[in-house]
Amino acid sequence: MNSTKQDKTETSSESNEDSRSSWRTIETNSLFADRISDVPKSFIREILKVTVSESIISFAGGLPNRDLFPTKALQDASNFVFENAGSEILQYSTTEGYLPLRKFIAERYALRGLEINPEDILITTGSQQGLDLLGKTFINEGDNVIIEEPGYLGAIQLFSVYRATFLPVALENDGLNIEQLKQVSGKKNTKLLYTVPNFSNPTGITYSTEKRKAVAEELNGKPIFIIEDDPYGDLRYKGENQLSFKHILPEQTILLGSFSKTVVPSFRIGWIVASKPIMDKLLVAKQASDLHTNYFTQRLLHQFLVSNSLDSHIKTIKEVYGRQAEAMVSSIKKYFPAEVSFTLPEGGMFLWVTLPKGISSMKLFDLAIKEDVAFVPGNPFYTQKLESTNTLRLNFSCVDEKKIEEGIKKLSLVIKKLLNEKL
Amino acid sequence: MNSTKQDKTETSSESNEDSRSSWRTIETNSLFADRISDVPKSFIREILKVTVSESIISFAGGLPNRDLFPTKALQDASNFVFENAGSEILQYSTTEGYLPLRKFIAERYALRGLEINPEDILITTGSQQGLDLLGKTFINEGDNVIIEEPGYLGAIQLFSVYRATFLPVALENDGLNIEQLKQVSGKKNTKLLYTVPNFSNPTGITYSTEKRKAVAEELNGKPIFIIEDDPYGDLRYKGENQLSFKHILPEQTILLGSFSKTVVPSFRIGWIVASKPIMDKLLVAKQASDLHTNYFTQRLLHQFLVSNSLDSHIKTIKEVYGRQAEAMVSSIKKYFPAEVSFTLPEGGMFLWVTLPKGISSMKLFDLAIKEDVAFVPGNPFYTQKLESTNTLRLNFSCVDEKKIEEGIKKLSLVIKKLLNEKL
Repeated sequence: MNSTKQDKTETSSESNEDSRSSWRTIETNSLFADRISDVPKSFIREILKVTVSESIISFAGGLPNRDLFPTKALQDASNFVFENAGSEILQYSTTEGYLPLRKFIAERYALRGLEINPEDILITTGSQQGLDLLGKTFINEGDNVIIEEPGYLGAIQLFSVYRATFLPVALENDGLNIEQLKQVSGKKNTKLLYTVPNFSNPTGITYSTEKRKAVAEELNGKPIFIIEDDPYGDLRYKGENQLSFKHILPEQTILLGSFSKTVVPSFRIGWIVASKPIMDKLLVAKQASDLHTNYFTQRLLHQFLVSNSLDSHIKTIKEVYGRQAEAMVSSIKKYFPAEVSFTLPEGGMFLWVTLPKGISSMKLFDLAIKEDVAFVPGNPFYTQKLESTNTLRLNFSCVDEKKIEEGIKKLSLVIKKLLNEKL
Repeated sequence: MNSTKQDKTETSSESNEDSRSSWRTIETNSLFADRISDVPKSFIREILKVTVSESIISFAGGLPNRDLFPTKALQDASNFVFENAGSEILQYSTTEGYLPLRKFIAERYALRGLEINPEDILITTGSQQGLDLLGKTFINEGDNVIIEEPGYLGAIQLFSVYRATFLPVALENDGLNIEQLKQVSGKKNTKLLYTVPNFSNPTGITYSTEKRKAVAEELNGKPIFIIEDDPYGDLRYKGENQLSFKHILPEQTILLGSFSKTVVPSFRIGWIVASKPIMDKLLVAKQASDLHTNYFTQRLLHQFLVSNSLDSHIKTIKEVYGRQAEAMVSSIKKYFPAEVSFTLPEGGMFLWVTLPKGISSMKLFDLAIKEDVAFVPGNPFYTQKLESTNTLRLNFSCVDEKKIEEGIKKLSLVIKKLLNEKL
């Protein structure tokens, strides 16, 4: 046990010197579950600590832009529910979540041609909890999870907790590499495929309809569920909406959704769409995990959604993020050396950069931070622990256009410096 | 898959009859993780469905009394944080939780002679999530958890999810049976002891200081952590506060706390107190589970706590619950047959009744519900699946004194009827 703690307990009137002495000899680490020893520490958590300074232009975050939060409308909604629903909004509630909120979500799916029963929707404490409940419900130690690579690090962390074995499949500019998918999809104990098909975190890549159909064809009839995680789907700046896997392979698709990117993240409100046999298990897992999602905030959010136009709010977000994405792409084209490649996101919050082979984005990070510009090196988005990658993630949602050009220009100078060293 | 779902997907433009046909032949159950197949379905969930009718006097709930919620003060706190902190309260936040809220909690422990560092406090999504994070962090399949019996069913459910093996120890009127504890505490792979030492759910029993010391002496130096779950500790109507296990065996005690019973439950705000080596693991588990607890509500709650007196609010709750507990005890003394025994709670929300041997509380429930009075049969509070128990839980927090007398009188008639059948 650490010594600070030790010192503090000295002051406790009932502390027992003997007990603590004998305790000190016990190896605490041996008491932890195997699952928790395996989980990678959050790399981004550590990086974000370095990048909070005001002087730094940070493309490292993964946050929505707080200037666009509908603060006043949420305050009005809060007052409305306090005044009209009173103490009921403060009591324990149902594990499934507030039914009118689930109906609202179902109605939005209906607009996209997806007929979802509100009973097949479970409100979760953010979509990260949706992942946790799916891990709890499906994964025995050693079960396989197919995951796009690079992929969402929160999913890598979560499935590591349940001691899944990852079957990474390369993410190409239009979606998964189908040849690689074919090689892994027949493996025994492969239960899930995890994908962010729209404006992926970290790459900004969107699957083409053809790739979606090819993925569905490969999995069709196999005992594998597709987890379609879609936090950014509403934030399309250009191009056409694609079919969901739920359109193409409905019985094998589980959807994850979230209000974190379209309304606000601090409420931690997301959802899972799953059919009844799965939902029955998810409800048991949800109840054991936290009984139910914060009910007051479900009521507040629902009130906001019925007394405001979510679509016109999303339109505002899309205009700002779209301009910023555009500014980032044109600055990259203007300043980055031609050897550097990058994705062209049609929505979401991220863009993915690939440096020439052998150029380490970790080394680039160390140099860039000295020039007051930050990003996330690609390492944590791979399932294998890598010493060095030549990839990096850039966020464009929280930096205005002027700062984006300034930051990309600074970054280009550091990249050129590294490339010259290499020559 | 269920047929309703099947029918609905017919309307989806991209639905593929072949894919669904082949999928239908897959045995979905074989895909679930072992852990989720073992978890008992919530019995109380089912019971509460029967007892929602207005005409029923329900002692079945486990809810705090919503008439006492500080609704107006919380609305004021909500407006204050919206107006003074603005969009910041709506953004993602730290996994650990809002520091001033953790300091507030630490200061309340200090008043009880417990010196807790705010860094040793993690804000959780209700104390149920505290349990989940501890299960994630400590329990490998088959590891032993010592648990008081009868014990909190949320803990039984949760540790079942992590496939723990339970070592139940009988809960006597002054705490655990020490002889039984001695028989199990040396068993290999015994990692945790779970206890609600103050006004336990379901029994209302409080451990005497002597029993606490005897438990601590037995575990002292053994590689076992005591999880002291204390949601009701502030709700003492009579008698003196007891020492916490954190006073007696500080290095081996992990505390769970909650604002659900002292402020409101819908916010889902609880906490864990653990020392650094454990906290490091809990933070990894928390981040993978839901990133962080609803930050807006943490801010709102903290504002409520600093601009109101929590103690004077708790005093109001204690006066009401104390009167209702008193009414229940005196009604039981007045109406129940002498062969029925019951606990005398000094706080909390529950009282535990033991019928003569061979009298089934499930059978009593079926008869009682016909007389419009409800309670929870003892079955779900045991780690073994029992067909029949002679015990039951009565809640007194949500029923006023007049209704309590009326309900206990009705219940006594049904008990007498069952006893007469038995003769």
